[in-house]
Amino acid sequence: MKRLDSTPKADGFRMPGEFEPHKGTYIIWPERPDNWRYGAKPAQATFIKVAEAISKFEPVTVCVSDEQYANARQLLPDNIKVVEMSNNDSWVRDCGPTFVTNGKEIRGVDWEFNAWGGLVDGLYFPWDKDDRVAQKICELENANRYRTEGFILEGGSIHVDGEGTLVTTEECLLSEGRNSHLTKEEIEEHLKKYLNLEKIIWLKRGIYLDETNGHVDNIFSFVKPGEAILAWTEDKNDPQYEICKECLDILENETDARGRKIKVHKLLLPKPILIAKEESEGVDAVDGTLPRNEGDRLAASYANFYIVNGGVLVPLFNDPNDKKAIETLQNAFPDREIIGIYAREILLGGGNIHCITQQVPKGAD
Amino acid sequence: MKRLDSTPKADGFRMPGEFEPHKGTYIIWPERPDNWRYGAKPAQATFIKVAEAISKFEPVTVCVSDEQYANARQLLPDNIKVVEMSNNDSWVRDCGPTFVTNGKEIRGVDWEFNAWGGLVDGLYFPWDKDDRVAQKICELENANRYRTEGFILEGGSIHVDGEGTLVTTEECLLSEGRNSHLTKEEIEEHLKKYLNLEKIIWLKRGIYLDETNGHVDNIFSFVKPGEAILAWTEDKNDPQYEICKECLDILENETDARGRKIKVHKLLLPKPILIAKEESEGVDAVDGTLPRNEGDRLAASYANFYIVNGGVLVPLFNDPNDKKAIETLQNAFPDREIIGIYAREILLGGGNIHCITQQVPKGAD
Repeated sequence: MKRLDSTPKADGFRMPGEFEPHKGTYIIWPERPDNWRYGAKPAQATFIKVAEAISKFEPVTVCVSDEQYANARQLLPDNIKVVEMSNNDSWVRDCGPTFVTNGKEIRGVDWEFNAWGGLVDGLYFPWDKDDRVAQKICELENANRYRTEGFILEGGSIHVDGEGTLVTTEECLLSEGRNSHLTKEEIEEHLKKYLNLEKIIWLKRGIYLDETNGHVDNIFSFVKPGEAILAWTEDKNDPQYEICKECLDILENETDARGRKIKVHKLLLPKPILIAKEESEGVDAVDGTLPRNEGDRLAASYANFYIVNGGVLVPLFNDPNDKKAIETLQNAFPDREIIGIYAREILLGGGNIHCITQQVPKGAD
Repeated sequence: MKRLDSTPKADGFRMPGEFEPHKGTYIIWPERPDNWRYGAKPAQATFIKVAEAISKFEPVTVCVSDEQYANARQLLPDNIKVVEMSNNDSWVRDCGPTFVTNGKEIRGVDWEFNAWGGLVDGLYFPWDKDDRVAQKICELENANRYRTEGFILEGGSIHVDGEGTLVTTEECLLSEGRNSHLTKEEIEEHLKKYLNLEKIIWLKRGIYLDETNGHVDNIFSFVKPGEAILAWTEDKNDPQYEICKECLDILENETDARGRKIKVHKLLLPKPILIAKEESEGVDAVDGTLPRNEGDRLAASYANFYIVNGGVLVPLFNDPNDKKAIETLQNAFPDREIIGIYAREILLGGGNIHCITQQVPKGAD
């Protein structure tokens, strides 16, 4: 397939909202023992549950290293496609392509990737295999590709409404480890050209202590144009409260690209979740990789859900708010089936269901 | 995709002849420096020519290791699909799947692979990545798969007419390094079950000094049912003469599965081709890998051609018989375009165009 030198906006391609119809979903198989406890076996079991749940709604492709290929193929259900793909870790939301469409054809945006902050505050080194993932998925999808050399972005740091609006966080997109050579205005320009946008809404910060520098996909998501979900807490003693309140204030005082006010559903967070001793002990210690220490607070959030054709997959944490989260989402998505998946193992690795999935939009309307 | 415990014959699937319509062709990118001279760069240039030539007739997918991915993607034309696939070398004819069809669906036969003789006289060690290639190509093609645990075979050691007849060589299929735990009759049974055959025609030997233990695809090929090509020499002082004569005698005294005599076109071989000093010097010396010594005679043969939709690709050697080979093939395939490709670089690695290609048949009639 081709590498294109133009931009999606110039070519009439836009990024659809996640709630628009999908052709399918990609997942990368987890394996690195310095991030996933006990040789990633518990995480693999949870990834299988996620893949299986999605495959009831749309086709799923799981990308896996050669070393883990036979194991993944044997453990995953037959209706899931397994393809070889080298990787540094399993966050296809962030290293995978962002697909754009003109209603007839899909193309991929292949953002430069530097493991959430490169040599400044990245989470591991090196990240070269991750940075080839987007290109390889584009090839598998027969999709030509825009590569943003010199512009670093992860798919989890943006959400769009498919009608010209993007929501992101300053904490992430203005972080020192990504595009500190660009001004905020220049970053806006890049986003607008590569995703075909008219308006960027800047939240300040994401979930408290989120190691991605506050990815928006852990705190906010669109339900449809003009309607969104915001992670929320009523606990004013939690540092998370001020962050959520700040987001809400911004959203309530903004309009989207079409001039609409955005209706916001508050999605209550679980209580703080800390890494247990046994969980910490199962992770290999490796210099240069973010450690998983006992007692560290995890960035747990139900907002890290993933919308599929006819369904919504939401992470659960064995928390009293699990039930409430499903109710809130069912209320926001009345026409979709809400599937809860106990996902502490994904959280322990630093993200959740939205972070480990990447949709391929339907090419034709 | 699924691993099936039945057999193609039981399920009503047969291997089509190579001359039947293709969905596309797979190739594996060459790279190992202990087989391909000068870091495989000259071989890569020739593989590109082959891929490009095939892509004028049908879709081509090139499989490549992660290490060579960026290089291959950049060097290959845009219309060729490039997918990651770990491998031990680039002989997809031999380690790839043999596809079978029932006229509606395709499935793969995933033969056990041991690098042309395993620990007895195999050409390198290990071969584990090669042995996963067939499975991975099946996944990419959404094809369920029959795995022949305990039965070793390479695709280059067989040719079929698609109507119940298979031609092979005793030199290869009865070799000590493959299925010496099975009798000739048991080997016939496996072939019949997995390829849906009624008749096996056993040639004695393949091309003189062929390191594959005389793969049939270097000496013989079907044009269509009842008609075939046989490599030939008139030089009675060449040890090759006796081999060719023996093949001809067998073919002339045999009938195929439908009771037809087989019309044989003789395809004159090039003059003996030896490895040059400079060619030998470009290859890394590695214990356990077959060396490439100056003066060694190569198994050069025009019979290692590959039939594509509407064309035939034939290796050329800058030999006086090049022109004659094209004439013979044009005469045998009057409705196909004959494309000659100078292919000494592939020959230096131990095979030729047929060995580096694997067709995917059209699933539906």
